[in-house]
Amino acid sequence: MTEPQFVIPLWADLTAVGLGGVQGALFASGFRGRQRLDPLGVVIIGILIGMGGGLIRDLLLGVPPVTLQSNWYLMTATSAALVGMLLSNIFQRLNAAIIGLDAVVIGLFGAFGTSKALVLGLPIVPAIFIGSCAAVGGSILRDVIMGLPVAIMHVGSLYAVAAAVGCAVLAGATALGAPIVVAAIVGIAVTTVIRLLAVVFDISLPEQRALHRRKVAVETSSIPIVKP
Amino acid sequence: MTEPQFVIPLWADLTAVGLGGVQGALFASGFRGRQRLDPLGVVIIGILIGMGGGLIRDLLLGVPPVTLQSNWYLMTATSAALVGMLLSNIFQRLNAAIIGLDAVVIGLFGAFGTSKALVLGLPIVPAIFIGSCAAVGGSILRDVIMGLPVAIMHVGSLYAVAAAVGCAVLAGATALGAPIVVAAIVGIAVTTVIRLLAVVFDISLPEQRALHRRKVAVETSSIPIVKP
Amino acid sequence: MTEPQFVIPLWADLTAVGLGGVQGALFASGFRGRQRLDPLGVVIIGILIGMGGGLIRDLLLGVPPVTLQSNWYLMTATSAALVGMLLSNIFQRLNAAIIGLDAVVIGLFGAFGTSKALVLGLPIVPAIFIGSCAAVGGSILRDVIMGLPVAIMHVGSLYAVAAAVGCAVLAGATALGAPIVVAAIVGIAVTTVIRLLAVVFDISLPEQRALHRRKVAVETSSIPIVKP
Repeated sequence: MTEPQFVIPLWADLTAVGLGGVQGALFASGFRGRQRLDPLGVVIIGILIGMGGGLIRDLLLGVPPVTLQSNWYLMTATSAALVGMLLSNIFQRLNAAIIGLDAVVIGLFGAFGTSKALVLGLPIVPAIFIGSCAAVGGSILRDVIMGLPVAIMHVGSLYAVAAAVGCAVLAGATALGAPIVVAAIVGIAVTTVIRLLAVVFDISLPEQRALHRRKVAVETSSIPIVKP
Repeated sequence: MTEPQFVIPLWADLTAVGLGGVQGALFASGFRGRQRLDPLGVVIIGILIGMGGGLIRDLLLGVPPVTLQSNWYLMTATSAALVGMLLSNIFQRLNAAIIGLDAVVIGLFGAFGTSKALVLGLPIVPAIFIGSCAAVGGSILRDVIMGLPVAIMHVGSLYAVAAAVGCAVLAGATALGAPIVVAAIVGIAVTTVIRLLAVVFDISLPEQRALHRRKVAVETSSIPIVKP
Repeated sequence: MTEPQFVIPLWADLTAVGLGGVQGALFASGFRGRQRLDPLGVVIIGILIGMGGGLIRDLLLGVPPVTLQSNWYLMTATSAALVGMLLSNIFQRLNAAIIGLDAVVIGLFGAFGTSKALVLGLPIVPAIFIGSCAAVGGSILRDVIMGLPVAIMHVGSLYAVAAAVGCAVLAGATALGAPIVVAAIVGIAVTTVIRLLAVVFDISLPEQRALHRRKVAVETSSIPIVKP
């Protein structure tokens, strides 16, 4: 029943890339003043969000990036970013829909990444890791290139957790013998639901804590213990 | 007439790497005070500018980085960076020459990247993309590692556009049957000329705009619409 | 006597990864206030420090990342990061021990990287470069993702120098016919000693200087000469 030859259909892959491109453009349109982006910058952000996760996935897998083997991915990401830029006023009114789409997109990237890793014979833990990197990699690249704090690193985000749990469910279900397509659909659903619940109910992880109580440093200090 | 076995001659590749290394050192010498760099930092910037584009190109192509297959590239980039550091006073008086050389260097990196991608059988759009990444990749890595805003992301730069147009001309000419060496020379010339014109006449892309007029937010705000 | 089939034993590799994970967690526990990290962020930092150097090494070598071919690396890095987080109060009292361990870890990563490159047939200069990148790569990734100035880029650090010298000793000894295991042990020792001496005696590289004296710009300015 399990089909190890699971291939991500091109239309599904391009849909995720296109949604990512629109996301990127809407993100980029939020910058004003000195930080404003020209259309090239908008397209770059669109490409990073739409294709960055897949690039990271393939680099970690040690295979040539599939998104650069055809013209379609770049054309889709670029077109989607330009459409997103031109229609950003309309899209901004659809904020709820965009957040929903975004939740589906990270689910898709995570599921594609995890299943590709499993199909290539990687063990379950790295497969989950690579899926999670594929899901959030685009947003990390975006934040780094924009000089923003990397969103997933700070308290208040269940973004990466949603991706990782969905990937783990996919990998676990596959290990238990579920067909990979079914496992992928369940994994995507899990990621999407966790992400949406986190947004709706404003859930986040607790802050890190050490086992022994200590006097809490009140001010914002960022002094590392071991200075390299 | 078309020679798909086009190989970048080592001397040309090393020339571009060396020019990049000098560029990097001159850039690094501009930092003073708390941001100042030690000689190791200067060498690192020189290596990033001289070899970073080629590394990114080969990672995107899924081939082992050619710049690490021989001793020459690192030795060239390092020597060039040290010479650039020691002679930075002289080079700074040659600012116009440096800007001119830089324009040629991004042309070279772009042409090498695009033609290598085409020779490896990639379609035209990813080939142009990889060439552009090879041309500007070094400066992106430099800005990220220095903690600076990534230059190509903000209004006021025709750097990446010059690279992309030159790569597109190369790829287009090749597709139309031009010998790849001729196409490469034309592509390098196009990139160089656009870049120099942009510097001389201070040309830049228009700011992104949405189709419908909106009240312009005056202050610098950087609030993304969809917070991940 | 030289054994080109030198393989890094899994226990040694995992030890380095685990030490890196603890290091990462201790680093992360130093952040308070708005910069504070949730447990996921601590784990991500632990993974970056423990596995980032090996990932960069394998990307530069053009081989699939070995740390993602088994479950052990991610499990070790994650567990070590969580233990480091929970016991950070205890570890902080052992600051001297931690700095010592860190010096050994960069020696290990550097030696593993250089010897893997040599075994794969790379020339000596790129092998030293890749070893150095493997040693400091994790801390670069950590600084970039945390939005901190990249530590190795600024005056006051012999971190990267210690790694590079150790790697050069390893590569030089191998070139002179020493068995690679012996060369690796010497290289690790050299890196560790240089790093510890630099910490104890607060040694750093001199600031970059140009050959001709110039009026020193007093204020912190970061104006690059050639604006891209």
